[in-house]
Amino acid sequence: MRFSKGRNFLFRIPEGREFLSAVNEFAKKHNVLIGTVSAIGTLKNPKIGHFEEEKGQYKVIELEGTYELVSALGNISIKDEEPFVHVHVSLGDSEGRVFGGHLIEGEVFAAEVYIQELLGELLVRKPQENGLSLWDAEED
Amino acid sequence: MRFSKGRNFLFRIPEGREFLSAVNEFAKKHNVLIGTVSAIGTLKNPKIGHFEEEKGQYKVIELEGTYELVSALGNISIKDEEPFVHVHVSLGDSEGRVFGGHLIEGEVFAAEVYIQELLGELLVRKPQENGLSLWDAEED
Amino acid sequence: MRFSKGRNFLFRIPEGREFLSAVNEFAKKHNVLIGTVSAIGTLKNPKIGHFEEEKGQYKVIELEGTYELVSALGNISIKDEEPFVHVHVSLGDSEGRVFGGHLIEGEVFAAEVYIQELLGELLVRKPQENGLSLWDAEED
Repeated sequence: MRFSKGRNFLFRIPEGREFLSAVNEFAKKHNVLIGTVSAIGTLKNPKIGHFEEEKGQYKVIELEGTYELVSALGNISIKDEEPFVHVHVSLGDSEGRVFGGHLIEGEVFAAEVYIQELLGELLVRKPQENGLSLWDAEED
Repeated sequence: MRFSKGRNFLFRIPEGREFLSAVNEFAKKHNVLIGTVSAIGTLKNPKIGHFEEEKGQYKVIELEGTYELVSALGNISIKDEEPFVHVHVSLGDSEGRVFGGHLIEGEVFAAEVYIQELLGELLVRKPQENGLSLWDAEED
Repeated sequence: MRFSKGRNFLFRIPEGREFLSAVNEFAKKHNVLIGTVSAIGTLKNPKIGHFEEEKGQYKVIELEGTYELVSALGNISIKDEEPFVHVHVSLGDSEGRVFGGHLIEGEVFAAEVYIQELLGELLVRKPQENGLSLWDAEED
């Protein structure tokens, strides 16, 4: 789907906040209904998910310690009639090894976030048979 | 080179499609000649490349199974007189370990893609002596 | 903080340049004071950092050889009264394994960079007690 540009936000999340809830709250507070999200920083004790198709749910991977937030990439759309942030992350440990997946939660040590709001017809997530909650697919 | 903003697309690729050909087809269908691409999702049996300078070609790394598409990042420019999508990906396995490189192919389980069209003088990829196909470098 | 859109740059850094200094010089040359940065490519002998909270400084991880630049993601803001580029990278080795963290330096084999300039009140990095240099945090 095609959108026009909305507002642009570049900001820092305070230390100690949970990353995903902070971005979700920001989207709700500023009424960002559609958009893209990217971020870098440092997270503590992040939990990430790997989707298991046969079970139709995420396997949770709990990482302990402090990780560089090498990339957070994702989007904002509507789920259950509210703005909903969907983000995947890659996380570097103290040896530089990278772990990553679907972000479930992570405590912010530092996080610099860019949100590009998009304007247009709402993108709405709907539960699918496979267990994911997705937008209608682009028609060919 | 400097560009002005064009259209913005945020969309989902249907399950079962090959990721890179789907984004290439989207660019051709919508006549996106220059732009940036980012995506997250889940890919099956992705193939990635690592460029080997001494051979002037990509070593192909075939990954088996289902991987979180932690990040897809890249651009659209012109190659062989057509829009051409160049994307690098990071992919998380079921233990959260991340693999990545130049995306060669991958079957979509889910993929949410953002394309920012850019407008201006065309960026054209030309074969280089080192085996890569590149734009003219920015002059200092 | 909220910004309006400025200029857009998509360009290639010549082989042999150091990535971070090349992007910093580009920002200074074009007077980009605030913005976002993303890139893909191939880097040689990159050095990355992992922040050690207890020491208040980065542990340096030196990687040898050629790595796919799977993602470079970051931003431009003001530090010491100059444009300052802050980028995190993920890097794929010849087996596809990914390493990553805060980019300290890396020699460009190839690099395709996108810069989105933002316009508005300047974002200024100030030294913090924890050893990082950060913007004022977004107020709730």
